[in-house]
Amino acid sequence: MSKKLDAITSRSEDFAQWYTDVCKKSELVDYSSVRGCMIFRPYGYAIWELIQKQLDQRFKATGHENVYMPMFIPESLLQKEADHVEGFAPEVAWVTHGGHEKLEERLLVRPTSEVLFCEHYSNIIQSHRDLPKLYNQWCSVVRWEKTTRPFLRSMEFLWQEGHTAHATAEEAQEETLRMLDTYVEFCKNVLAIPMVFGQKTEKEKFAGAKATYTIESLMPDGKALQSGTTHNFGDGFAKAFDIQYTDKENKLQYVHQTSWGVTTRLIGAVIMVHSDDNGLVVPPRIAPNQVVIIPVAQHKEGVLDKANELLEKLSKNIRVKLDQSDKSPGWKFSEHEMKGVPIRLEIGPKDIENNQCVLARRDTGEKIIVSLDNVESEIERLLDEIHHNLYEKADKYLGEKTYIATTMEEFSKILEETPGFIKAMWCEDEKCELEIKEKTGATSRCMPFAQEKIADKCIVCGKDATKMVYWGKAY
Amino acid sequence: MSKKLDAITSRSEDFAQWYTDVCKKSELVDYSSVRGCMIFRPYGYAIWELIQKQLDQRFKATGHENVYMPMFIPESLLQKEADHVEGFAPEVAWVTHGGHEKLEERLLVRPTSEVLFCEHYSNIIQSHRDLPKLYNQWCSVVRWEKTTRPFLRSMEFLWQEGHTAHATAEEAQEETLRMLDTYVEFCKNVLAIPMVFGQKTEKEKFAGAKATYTIESLMPDGKALQSGTTHNFGDGFAKAFDIQYTDKENKLQYVHQTSWGVTTRLIGAVIMVHSDDNGLVVPPRIAPNQVVIIPVAQHKEGVLDKANELLEKLSKNIRVKLDQSDKSPGWKFSEHEMKGVPIRLEIGPKDIENNQCVLARRDTGEKIIVSLDNVESEIERLLDEIHHNLYEKADKYLGEKTYIATTMEEFSKILEETPGFIKAMWCEDEKCELEIKEKTGATSRCMPFAQEKIADKCIVCGKDATKMVYWGKAY
Repeated sequence: MSKKLDAITSRSEDFAQWYTDVCKKSELVDYSSVRGCMIFRPYGYAIWELIQKQLDQRFKATGHENVYMPMFIPESLLQKEADHVEGFAPEVAWVTHGGHEKLEERLLVRPTSEVLFCEHYSNIIQSHRDLPKLYNQWCSVVRWEKTTRPFLRSMEFLWQEGHTAHATAEEAQEETLRMLDTYVEFCKNVLAIPMVFGQKTEKEKFAGAKATYTIESLMPDGKALQSGTTHNFGDGFAKAFDIQYTDKENKLQYVHQTSWGVTTRLIGAVIMVHSDDNGLVVPPRIAPNQVVIIPVAQHKEGVLDKANELLEKLSKNIRVKLDQSDKSPGWKFSEHEMKGVPIRLEIGPKDIENNQCVLARRDTGEKIIVSLDNVESEIERLLDEIHHNLYEKADKYLGEKTYIATTMEEFSKILEETPGFIKAMWCEDEKCELEIKEKTGATSRCMPFAQEKIADKCIVCGKDATKMVYWGKAY
Repeated sequence: MSKKLDAITSRSEDFAQWYTDVCKKSELVDYSSVRGCMIFRPYGYAIWELIQKQLDQRFKATGHENVYMPMFIPESLLQKEADHVEGFAPEVAWVTHGGHEKLEERLLVRPTSEVLFCEHYSNIIQSHRDLPKLYNQWCSVVRWEKTTRPFLRSMEFLWQEGHTAHATAEEAQEETLRMLDTYVEFCKNVLAIPMVFGQKTEKEKFAGAKATYTIESLMPDGKALQSGTTHNFGDGFAKAFDIQYTDKENKLQYVHQTSWGVTTRLIGAVIMVHSDDNGLVVPPRIAPNQVVIIPVAQHKEGVLDKANELLEKLSKNIRVKLDQSDKSPGWKFSEHEMKGVPIRLEIGPKDIENNQCVLARRDTGEKIIVSLDNVESEIERLLDEIHHNLYEKADKYLGEKTYIATTMEEFSKILEETPGFIKAMWCEDEKCELEIKEKTGATSRCMPFAQEKIADKCIVCGKDATKMVYWGKAY
């Protein structure tokens, strides 16, 4: 039982293979015989449950309520909003038969649920007293993707979709930005991932939205990952679905709507941003096990008793696991390293004699010896420290990999040699945006709220620039 | 604002309409344009979340882990277990197209996920060290039903499905009965619903199971509601899917499997068993709001302050809501009565003067005056009392409506005049079971573990009886 886990591909050698290895070897996912659909194994799903719980608290604290809508959408319902159907129809799964019968109207499996929420809102909203409606749904959705990768792009994925209806355009805009802020704060304080955020260009916005906002993270291969979006729909959907209310003056008005969502893709971001050649690194606040206790020389008298005593003591406020299997300590070390448990607690006969234990950090590898008298508070302090260290490391990387370009030559050179985010000026003409994409493969990621005037002219056409944009290659 | 809510149909007048009225008027559900699929509104979904949370705790406490499997199943995978495909193929939704392309192989939307779990288990189980696998999944499933009713029968419904794999037949049987016990205990202690439970007959068992066990509750119209099932699969699926492990002697063995599930149908049971002509009655332990505070004469100085103070105080351990809208107290009373909030707390200027408030029970209508000094403990006591009262009432009803029949004449008379459960002897011949169904519309509900010999002969054919069975008409 002393053999070590198989090593995984090194990150610098083959990033894509490293990512797949981490996903599989840390037992987050498995493949199924359904093309493009993945299985969330217990460890992967436990991370999603912790993400869900902490996001859901934030949604409820801001007045949102959970609902559940059908997973099917009649084709005719999708067609009510022209841009929306155009955006989604090419990538949906169609149900054509129920039992042995052919359906009169095809149903699509929801790729997103705007039209169902709109139909429902048109039924339940009558008066200004019924507003706002602040609904959210946790579910799975399907998009018929050609190429898929665990967490990052799959035919079916898990997500939350918020859908709200408001009396005024101002309230809808506030909500759209409030939820963007919520996402940024959550990613920072829970996932330890810094985000670049701002508005999407017209070309990149959501099918049917008036404005789309995004949070974008930067992966270690220099590619951007769109990690969540919020949309202001204005009254476009309200007009298509006739969602009207009588205001205080008894006049009929259209509601203003928003939607916003994050997906299991966030787990993909966590894996890529924090992990290393020894496997997964899970940030403490979403770690299914924050601490694993590994008894050393566990056959010796008193060791397992002490380990169990520690387990019970720590379990009150910490997610802790005791590994008392008959594998060797070395095997256990590398197994829990692969699974990215933030802290390994080692305890053996000598430690017990000295009333101490060893804490080993997954993020830095550093080991410290602590007294058993204050092990609990030391672990809590250390978990916070690990969280902050992971965030700082990611933030430093983001800073280093964010460049400025004022000519297309610079732009292309950066993308080829040191890929990352590129800040460059733009005239807001879609032609220039397309030209960048065609020539370099980079797309506009967002127009940040904090605009800097890094040049006067559009980097493509040389005309007057109106927006500073973050560009990059993306997943 | 003094108008009352529209009354609902009385339960004794039209039970089916009463049920639909309660579902709609208490804002649990709404219909959608998708035939047979319902919308869980915030109040209905909040009840499901409380059911989920308390079941999930029980699953995790018994060592189960959550996973997530794809929602699609390739047709060929379903066909691997003969009985299983025969049972489910007639009632599934078929996906035939992805985007604009026709699929080479049809996919079905999961009606249940046995085959996906089996395929996964065959990949991840190698050694006796990998056993047992105790997995559970929370998701929605689809069955192509002709006639549908909110919660009781719908094309798509929410549920949990446990799927486990064990080294021995004994362990699988223990698991099957452990989860049945868990369901019975949960229904008693959380939903306040007494269950009759036992084994299903061969005819009524799950497609592919060796043995199926069931919990059955009795509705106020005398019909039984199958409320949850657990299945022992033996090694049938293991052989069809080649799920083998090497035992301690290094020999290849097939695993033994179970599955078990409860659905949002439980909410239907709660509604029917506890509610009345004034609307919904929600048992305290799944009530989204256990207490609603209604300020009386709220415009008077100090009333809203006191109400808010109470809200804050009670919020620590109780799910409490303050209704300070500008509706009249009378309107609020009937609104929260319709929604089945267990306790209404009234507080007005006179109450404040006397350092007291009024607690009104939803289950009995009884009002008591309590001192503000111990309102918290009084409410906690009262919530427990309401729970027990609801359970006792339902249990008394179940006892009264459980009959014994020794002849088919008695059997038919009971079903016509005072429908409920009928205990009668059976010879275990499927012909007799079918004859009862054809002649009376009743089906075998279960063969209880606690067998009573109420007669020697089968009630149908007069041959020697081997089993006492609960019979009844069912949803």
